[in-house]
Amino acid sequence: MDETLTKNKAQQIEESFQKQGFMSYINASITQLEKGEVHIICPYSPDVSQQNGFFHAGIITSIVDVACGYAALSMMPEGMEVLSVEFKVNLLRPAVGSQITAVAKVIKAGKKLTVCEGNVYDENEKLVAKMMATMIGVEQS
Amino acid sequence: MDETLTKNKAQQIEESFQKQGFMSYINASITQLEKGEVHIICPYSPDVSQQNGFFHAGIITSIVDVACGYAALSMMPEGMEVLSVEFKVNLLRPAVGSQITAVAKVIKAGKKLTVCEGNVYDENEKLVAKMMATMIGVEQS
Amino acid sequence: MDETLTKNKAQQIEESFQKQGFMSYINASITQLEKGEVHIICPYSPDVSQQNGFFHAGIITSIVDVACGYAALSMMPEGMEVLSVEFKVNLLRPAVGSQITAVAKVIKAGKKLTVCEGNVYDENEKLVAKMMATMIGVEQS
Amino acid sequence: MDETLTKNKAQQIEESFQKQGFMSYINASITQLEKGEVHIICPYSPDVSQQNGFFHAGIITSIVDVACGYAALSMMPEGMEVLSVEFKVNLLRPAVGSQITAVAKVIKAGKKLTVCEGNVYDENEKLVAKMMATMIGVEQS
Repeated sequence: MDETLTKNKAQQIEESFQKQGFMSYINASITQLEKGEVHIICPYSPDVSQQNGFFHAGIITSIVDVACGYAALSMMPEGMEVLSVEFKVNLLRPAVGSQITAVAKVIKAGKKLTVCEGNVYDENEKLVAKMMATMIGVEQS
Repeated sequence: MDETLTKNKAQQIEESFQKQGFMSYINASITQLEKGEVHIICPYSPDVSQQNGFFHAGIITSIVDVACGYAALSMMPEGMEVLSVEFKVNLLRPAVGSQITAVAKVIKAGKKLTVCEGNVYDENEKLVAKMMATMIGVEQS
Repeated sequence: MDETLTKNKAQQIEESFQKQGFMSYINASITQLEKGEVHIICPYSPDVSQQNGFFHAGIITSIVDVACGYAALSMMPEGMEVLSVEFKVNLLRPAVGSQITAVAKVIKAGKKLTVCEGNVYDENEKLVAKMMATMIGVEQS
Repeated sequence: MDETLTKNKAQQIEESFQKQGFMSYINASITQLEKGEVHIICPYSPDVSQQNGFFHAGIITSIVDVACGYAALSMMPEGMEVLSVEFKVNLLRPAVGSQITAVAKVIKAGKKLTVCEGNVYDENEKLVAKMMATMIGVEQS
């Protein structure tokens, strides 16, 4: 099996990410894109904060959900797109510092469903959150 | 038991919500605030969209997480604040239209932990997502 | 839409349940079977207990998972069977007394996936656990 | 920090496990017990099967929940016992063969809550399920 992400697939993911208005609104970016693994970072600003000034749980969840989705998509055949079926997140400690990084990996790529695991780290590489997510592939419309 | 939210508690929640930079960034607002039940709406704009123009799963999750948190806080004694321990969300259908509404209710308020359920509806009152969340109370610093 | 469970479907569910060795081992039984809603009870015995003598979390989870699965199956076309994709359970209080009852309902029946909610009650109708589950239909082999 | 499980703690866990009527009913046993990591196996028999003869999802979940609980307890101070707050399980493939093994590890041991991850493998070391669980320590009564 070829473990390299095809150029087509990489381009599909990059283009899809560019179209996510919310991701650009918070200045998130993809920093790594491989077959079965995707990293996304989000820089700190007051616009992504919760009431104590830390990264908002919703922001942490958002970038790791997107990373899980594209990790799943990276394993799917051409012509598919991906939707989040569901996910669960444990928030382990306050996320402080200048940026957070979501690292998503595929645990099981099935014919219909793909299960991913995501970790979110603060700038000191402390684990701040952990996600388990179920993704579904649907034919591109 | 007095089922009314005290003025102090309501004020605490409103002030905490005002301090959430992320919530004001996306123009979310609390539309209902009762003991054990909180509603939050978020209007549509391209800044909260995913790649197909629908409400982003991260936005849906963010507002229902916040609503669950304050629903939990509304049942806690004075002097506490609330943190999300974990949550799980099922995304049931694309969220379209001009706004979404998160409705969070307390299922079980314990001494340490509070379990909440949240539903998110689109503008036609179709259920677009469902959350189950565990919240913890910590003493205000 | 006909909201009644067909005789065929009811029979399929009853037969499938009979074949679950584990369910008969713990003397669980279906007490209600409707389109979109299934109830299962499990009587207490030391064989289903945890270390303090209460109902084991694993037993609580097992019967509500099965109930969610059949609630999902009850909404699917003929010729399908059901598998649990994933579930999340919150355990709300110790489950004591002579029996527990799982009540599962379909939240959203989709073409591929069905999302269910399950509640487990003790003999005093106190809510002891809450599940959210994702089920998938597969063609009968 | 001493990473070895104290003799007291190991004994507490073994004794607690012995008292779990359900675990002995299904012939489960602890095969590894370290600070922060616990393994539990369950042999196959028709009594732990679902309708197709595979290991029942409820059995898979039960042993990995117990393993997560004791992994959490292994990190707690003396005089505590552990309760499952909640867990989420993804079922990845049918569990076949003569036994399954649950491997639980502590992800984050906090003052009140401990988050664990559990994997369940079949006899060929294929991953059949994955759990993320939140455990709470309570003073022994």
